[in-house]
Amino acid sequence: MFNIIRIKSKKRVDAIEITDYVRNIIKSLGVKDGVCVLYVPHTTAGIIINENADPNVIEDILDRLSEFAKENLNYKHLEGNADSHIKSSITSSSVNLIIENGELMLGTWQGVFFLEFDGPRERKIYCKILKDG
Amino acid sequence: MFNIIRIKSKKRVDAIEITDYVRNIIKSLGVKDGVCVLYVPHTTAGIIINENADPNVIEDILDRLSEFAKENLNYKHLEGNADSHIKSSITSSSVNLIIENGELMLGTWQGVFFLEFDGPRERKIYCKILKDG
Amino acid sequence: MFNIIRIKSKKRVDAIEITDYVRNIIKSLGVKDGVCVLYVPHTTAGIIINENADPNVIEDILDRLSEFAKENLNYKHLEGNADSHIKSSITSSSVNLIIENGELMLGTWQGVFFLEFDGPRERKIYCKILKDG
Repeated sequence: MFNIIRIKSKKRVDAIEITDYVRNIIKSLGVKDGVCVLYVPHTTAGIIINENADPNVIEDILDRLSEFAKENLNYKHLEGNADSHIKSSITSSSVNLIIENGELMLGTWQGVFFLEFDGPRERKIYCKILKDG
Repeated sequence: MFNIIRIKSKKRVDAIEITDYVRNIIKSLGVKDGVCVLYVPHTTAGIIINENADPNVIEDILDRLSEFAKENLNYKHLEGNADSHIKSSITSSSVNLIIENGELMLGTWQGVFFLEFDGPRERKIYCKILKDG
Repeated sequence: MFNIIRIKSKKRVDAIEITDYVRNIIKSLGVKDGVCVLYVPHTTAGIIINENADPNVIEDILDRLSEFAKENLNYKHLEGNADSHIKSSITSSSVNLIIENGELMLGTWQGVFFLEFDGPRERKIYCKILKDG
């Protein structure tokens, strides 16, 4: 069994914090200890953990990724989103989180962010929890 | 217990889809639900999940990585493969996949790719499955 | 239950090998088989697996990351460490390791490295082990 988090991105390149969705799943399942695997079943999106206090942090990250893989260069893939696939590959398709006493063991400044690289679209994140003991 | 997937890369920089190897392991073990951890025990290779419909997608990704870490720059490591180690670090040494009802929960366009950055070589991927329940 | 590895970085950009800390935790817990999740609860640091034989390999990786995200560019985040957050995002916040017969299944040349991008600081890595069977 796994849970699905459903979100909508609003721009071609976007970031959506999903930390509270994950906390709600953990609470609703009553999980005390374990590992939470978040998995993105898309090839033009990614998932990272970074600062959620100053939204400029995520903007700087998205800006730098957009310089790294520029839109509409002379790519071989002709659907206009080769840049999105490249960004997906250097961020990540999944992250692991530790659950202890029913809480996500995030650092003080950490949030979990879905990164959209080819939106706007409806997107999904799979949330699989492995209980410990 | 874990399984070993054995492959041979054919070029210095190469990509080999290993999705079917993973599906066969899951089927042969009869796993119904859980998480599959794929781990690359090499320091000049990586593993990613991305599109397997148009092979140009992976070529664009490899091309962009080769621009990011150029061969034979003025690196400190003198074995001629510093670029390969750098590419390994910004892709990944492992990925997680979710298993549900005996199936890999991949997205429609997703495949799992071993990325060779210092071939051709014989390579291994470790496949460890954690069953749920 | 999870264990905490405590380290001190010595420079703004630094790398600290933590492989032996992880081995000691596995030995002290008497774990035979499973998966070890290493998680970094910081937003200006990362964790990778790469070569621990020639220290120049990690220096080349850190150098290339510092070119990728230069310090003190025209970032929106004004705390002087936007580069550190960006580097954190393209390396990783967690890695998975496989444990078999009480041993870490690392490749011959592999070590686990905590990457500091905004030091010197006291830092933590969470080590969570999921036993198999």
